[in-house]
Amino acid sequence: MESVDPSEQVVLVVSAPSGGGKTTLCREFLKAFPGVSFSVSSTTRPPRPGEVDGRDYRFISTEEFRRKIEEGAFVEWAENFGHFYGTLAEEVERPRRLGMDVLLDVDTRGAKSLRARFPDGVFIFILPPSIEVLKERLSHRGSEGTEALRLRISRAMDEIQESVWYDYLIINEDLRASIEALKAVYTAEKIRVKRQGRRLRPFLRE
Amino acid sequence: MESVDPSEQVVLVVSAPSGGGKTTLCREFLKAFPGVSFSVSSTTRPPRPGEVDGRDYRFISTEEFRRKIEEGAFVEWAENFGHFYGTLAEEVERPRRLGMDVLLDVDTRGAKSLRARFPDGVFIFILPPSIEVLKERLSHRGSEGTEALRLRISRAMDEIQESVWYDYLIINEDLRASIEALKAVYTAEKIRVKRQGRRLRPFLRE
Repeated sequence: MESVDPSEQVVLVVSAPSGGGKTTLCREFLKAFPGVSFSVSSTTRPPRPGEVDGRDYRFISTEEFRRKIEEGAFVEWAENFGHFYGTLAEEVERPRRLGMDVLLDVDTRGAKSLRARFPDGVFIFILPPSIEVLKERLSHRGSEGTEALRLRISRAMDEIQESVWYDYLIINEDLRASIEALKAVYTAEKIRVKRQGRRLRPFLRE
Repeated sequence: MESVDPSEQVVLVVSAPSGGGKTTLCREFLKAFPGVSFSVSSTTRPPRPGEVDGRDYRFISTEEFRRKIEEGAFVEWAENFGHFYGTLAEEVERPRRLGMDVLLDVDTRGAKSLRARFPDGVFIFILPPSIEVLKERLSHRGSEGTEALRLRISRAMDEIQESVWYDYLIINEDLRASIEALKAVYTAEKIRVKRQGRRLRPFLRE
């Protein structure tokens, strides 16, 4: 078995305002690169119909969540509408020990914490093609009233302001092209010089 | 016509020790992206059979070359075996004015000068799969004696030492995979946040 060099690992972090098309994109990416490990978030909110524990989320109790916060087990966590959401460090560390790359799907707040922890991580922001499309996608989604919609739009716009510090921006106009873009980012990041020390070393003089 | 924003331009710089397979790679890349302008180097050496002026090189007189050096027209130039070789700034500036990206194929010394002039340039080093393959490729190439071959290998090894400051490393084991890697680098670099200011701006608050 080849030894594992953590400096080679690619930590891909994808964020998007809701309505950005992130979920489909990540799913298609993982189909193309089944060797990439998907980081499953933990939450205290109850599963929705169709959601599978360990695939969509790790559904844990509030007590367990709090205990893990105490232990410093989360790389990032937040409370939203009375429920906790977070990413366990193990979601990145376990694949790293196996020499696998990781894909994380987190909001901009979570991404910021991940940036601090994994400065060599690759941060990708998914943007809808225009503000109009964003509004349209958000309004198609909910059964909520105008006020709730307004809040969703405002929060999406807040998230978008954070995109400036990401590395890559995928404007999700055409799903196929966006998938190709995400795959290209991964393929390119894999061959960065900084991740190829092991391949390069035999060529270097002392 | 859309206005041109130079901050969006991708300046791709490819280097490889001879025997690295760079020429084929660049040619195939340009077939896939015909909108990318190829920077043609200038030289004072006479054309070899089959070489076309303006395609393979711009063949100019030593007098003209010296005059252009005086004028500061070169981004990089060097003298090799009594002949001058160089890249005119115009090779990058002209496509830039047209909103085009540029591919340059230069040695590591030239690449270093380009890095100083275009710090946002994308630097890609092509490496043979092993030192053995490098030696084999170099010895297949020449009709020279052992001493000349030894010199070529030593110079190739010198060039490889420089690869550590490049951005990407393509290990040219399989031509098809290497072309895909080069295309992925370009596709990824096109969507870097820093190159998408124009697309992002409408979403940003003051």
